[in-house]
Amino acid sequence: MLDGAYDPDNIFAKILRGEMACARVFEDEHVFSFMDVFPQSRGHTLVIPKHTTARNLLEEEPERLSHLILGVQRVAKAVRAALNPDGLVITQFNGAPAGQTIYHLHVHIIPRWEGVPVGRHASGGMADMDELKALAEQISAKIS
Amino acid sequence: MLDGAYDPDNIFAKILRGEMACARVFEDEHVFSFMDVFPQSRGHTLVIPKHTTARNLLEEEPERLSHLILGVQRVAKAVRAALNPDGLVITQFNGAPAGQTIYHLHVHIIPRWEGVPVGRHASGGMADMDELKALAEQISAKIS
Repeated sequence: MLDGAYDPDNIFAKILRGEMACARVFEDEHVFSFMDVFPQSRGHTLVIPKHTTARNLLEEEPERLSHLILGVQRVAKAVRAALNPDGLVITQFNGAPAGQTIYHLHVHIIPRWEGVPVGRHASGGMADMDELKALAEQISAKIS
Repeated sequence: MLDGAYDPDNIFAKILRGEMACARVFEDEHVFSFMDVFPQSRGHTLVIPKHTTARNLLEEEPERLSHLILGVQRVAKAVRAALNPDGLVITQFNGAPAGQTIYHLHVHIIPRWEGVPVGRHASGGMADMDELKALAEQISAKIS
């Protein structure tokens, strides 16, 4: 289940090509960041490599992986600065039995607040796009 | 809760100094990898930076962070080769409300098998050190 061919029509590839809307947080030469539409907590943000056909972390080129983790750190710092969570979970799923649903390598940044349980992925339904865009603007303003 | 001073007597610092036993999987100039003593699944492995006083991902130097993720990829590939899981969860906790218990930056590699639920961290009690050492040897043999 960890093997397979990259599907160029996966949702994240469509977002990267501008064929599907997203609440964009940050973009540089290497990575693209946007709000998860099935947030497990307020401010749940994704970071993905732009130029890849890696379905998961095992398949990624080392140099691209370095750029990805630096993008994750940069966005995670901005999430913290914007939303002041008590903690941050960084997680990355490889294969369906590990919780992966979109087969373009991606990293989740999930803010946590003391006493607020984290939701199951996708169980809460799709978030309101205007709310996500407002959050994306708050986080984007803190990118440094 | 995301702020604080690095405690040089945290358990992972003691493991790095050889003052505490562990089931070692892999070590290079930059990273150290060993079995989690409170495994959430069979083969639950940790990767940590060796030369750091970063408590979490937010605090780490970018260059060290790059070395860390490359070490994670290398060990994750070995975990897969050794244990043939159906999936792999890679996760990293920042702050107690996010699940962090040891304040030396570390990344979890958690194998998943179809139909086998993942355990809560530490809920299953401490693993048998001989079993962990046998697993560590299996994984270590697959490092490439």
